[in-house]
Amino acid sequence: MPSPPRWPESQNKIPESVVIGKSAFEARYGFARKDVRLETWRLSPFNRWSFQNVGELVPSAHVAAALSGGEQAKSLGTLLEEKVSLAGGSETVGSFLKRSDTDGLTILKAGKVVGDWSAPHMPFGARHIIFSISKSVTAILAGILEGEGVFDPNAPVTKYIPEAKGSAYGDASVRNVLDMTVSLDFEEAYLDPESAFARYRRSTLWNPGGGSESLAAFLMTIQRLSEPHGQTYRYRSPNSDVLGILVERASGMRVTELLREKLWLPLGAASDMSVTVDMEGTARTAGGMSMTPRDLARIGEMMRQGGTANGRRIVPEAWVSDTVATGGSFEAWQRGTMAFLFPKGRYRNKWYQTGHDSGAFCGIGIHGQWLYVNPRTEVVIAKMSSQPEPVDDKLDEDLVAFFEALSGMV
Amino acid sequence: MPSPPRWPESQNKIPESVVIGKSAFEARYGFARKDVRLETWRLSPFNRWSFQNVGELVPSAHVAAALSGGEQAKSLGTLLEEKVSLAGGSETVGSFLKRSDTDGLTILKAGKVVGDWSAPHMPFGARHIIFSISKSVTAILAGILEGEGVFDPNAPVTKYIPEAKGSAYGDASVRNVLDMTVSLDFEEAYLDPESAFARYRRSTLWNPGGGSESLAAFLMTIQRLSEPHGQTYRYRSPNSDVLGILVERASGMRVTELLREKLWLPLGAASDMSVTVDMEGTARTAGGMSMTPRDLARIGEMMRQGGTANGRRIVPEAWVSDTVATGGSFEAWQRGTMAFLFPKGRYRNKWYQTGHDSGAFCGIGIHGQWLYVNPRTEVVIAKMSSQPEPVDDKLDEDLVAFFEALSGMV
Repeated sequence: MPSPPRWPESQNKIPESVVIGKSAFEARYGFARKDVRLETWRLSPFNRWSFQNVGELVPSAHVAAALSGGEQAKSLGTLLEEKVSLAGGSETVGSFLKRSDTDGLTILKAGKVVGDWSAPHMPFGARHIIFSISKSVTAILAGILEGEGVFDPNAPVTKYIPEAKGSAYGDASVRNVLDMTVSLDFEEAYLDPESAFARYRRSTLWNPGGGSESLAAFLMTIQRLSEPHGQTYRYRSPNSDVLGILVERASGMRVTELLREKLWLPLGAASDMSVTVDMEGTARTAGGMSMTPRDLARIGEMMRQGGTANGRRIVPEAWVSDTVATGGSFEAWQRGTMAFLFPKGRYRNKWYQTGHDSGAFCGIGIHGQWLYVNPRTEVVIAKMSSQPEPVDDKLDEDLVAFFEALSGMV
Repeated sequence: MPSPPRWPESQNKIPESVVIGKSAFEARYGFARKDVRLETWRLSPFNRWSFQNVGELVPSAHVAAALSGGEQAKSLGTLLEEKVSLAGGSETVGSFLKRSDTDGLTILKAGKVVGDWSAPHMPFGARHIIFSISKSVTAILAGILEGEGVFDPNAPVTKYIPEAKGSAYGDASVRNVLDMTVSLDFEEAYLDPESAFARYRRSTLWNPGGGSESLAAFLMTIQRLSEPHGQTYRYRSPNSDVLGILVERASGMRVTELLREKLWLPLGAASDMSVTVDMEGTARTAGGMSMTPRDLARIGEMMRQGGTANGRRIVPEAWVSDTVATGGSFEAWQRGTMAFLFPKGRYRNKWYQTGHDSGAFCGIGIHGQWLYVNPRTEVVIAKMSSQPEPVDDKLDEDLVAFFEALSGMV
């Protein structure tokens, strides 16, 4: 009798029978993940999977075991009283952390923990949603699969998602998706309940009233503008949900399986992470990931190290270099609406190149989520916040200045 | 500047200002957990909590870090070929594990791991829903709080839940709730969509169509029978959801906070656990917990040890002894519908006393969840399954015989 299977090796190998359209999940269980819903989860055979994954079906509260390796918070100490010079004048680090609604912060220098900071309402070791930094994490999976030769960023989207034909993605490339240059007819019309944006939010289950249309089905209804793809940086979140589906189709594995096997375990993450899913189990790769500040900083450090962690290669060095330094179209960025923040910047594979002399790059999420990496000073800063506004351009400018200053102070 | 707060000591102390009706959560955040819903979760100030607890609001997939302490599965080896004698004749352990749709199994003897078994579709280290063993776990919290002097099992329910007046719980005692002797007018009418049972399932978000009535609101609508409380063992899950609310009201802490501080960390659990919640964050303490077989076995071992784990007292010895050996009404059990399974048994504090000479006791959940503890042989067996039927009386009789036999074989 063989010993029981163990994550991840024995479970997540892609069976040879897998082809695009038939996932490892289906090969393993005999049904598709999307067949498991509130209507079916307690029925056989679906319960062979659902009983181990109830949180994907019913909202669930999480009770964490002790942190791996007994991680302890490390105080930032006197750094909090030091002054930084920002647009409105000089203020202390501690004061700015509060003003920018920080929940949790971790700073690394040369891979070592400089310190952590938490608001009274965020315990050390708690997870926090990273919103659109989820995009940057998902792109790492794409880079890993590219390195394995199973994912082609220059292929048409329809190579992996044939049913994209007829939508905006029908003649777009994976590269367009990765670099946010899809010519997408999609606006963030917050106030119109009949708008595509309202349907989008319902399809992700993030807003009340969802559950009648899946995220994947919704994405394939978005149409394109007349402008060709590839010309303009257009920040549209649905692109990044499409990226999640692309990596699943290319690998035959679910995003969560890819995350665990190819990123979370090799990275040496100390705590569990999670990602929100829709009615069919499609991950909200555009924004639904939650993790601890320490684990987010580990991702930044891996990128700073050119794609390695714990002496193990996670993603190809050339992919990292292209993503954080050399790739991306300056012209497309200039035509977009975020050039004010990084006038010399570019956007590549869901990461922002600041264009600063330091070579700094970052991932950014709404409500104040930041993963800032400064290659010159060897500093990584993970900041999680609960800013009242999703987007605050003025504060963003202060934040960039703050990270730049802070990375020179530690 | 003080160093960042750390779970659980600094966060979960009950502020002196807390009285029944105002929870530690409200004292800490300035709003109640039930104010955080899909409608509000991205708004300030609710996002100071929701951004750390997205899984309570949106179904989420879980990506586990490495197991704490690097736990490894241990094979049951030749035990799988050994024969056990059951109702239908003799069969091997391995054959019976498959016939009873086992997903994961862990056996301890004298606190040491004898071995684990997993079906091919359940990786070692995965969590699995334990259904009604959640009741037994919640009752441990009640026992701990009783030991701390903040919870009185003999008080009326209305001491902690004043709004229970007018419902079946209006003149019931906490003891009735703990021992399933509430005279509750509630039947499991599976097929009537307008029935109380259908409303119950929607209020827990376990079935489609939920979200318009909270679990707590539903529970307070159930009426009583004319029979006095305390006479008959009536297994009704809503009682156990009421128990979750009782321990929250008595302590001022959420069930998840109690679980972590008072059980999960002292127990030395190796992996995170979770519990499903309703629209207001009320935990499904009647059946919504998920954990690994190893961690479930740790709970059984703590009970076998009279309430201690890792040399630390978790729950009073007298409470454990009352629960697993001396307490409970034989007459109430006899009047109930489960006496066929344990003819000499009793039910106390959500645990089953088998009445066997071995002194065995257990927690049981639908679809084949079992936590079996045999004091004489010092054996603990945690079995998680995906049996097609929620309840299978015939198989249950085999299972009891199997556990009894197995505990003598290891």
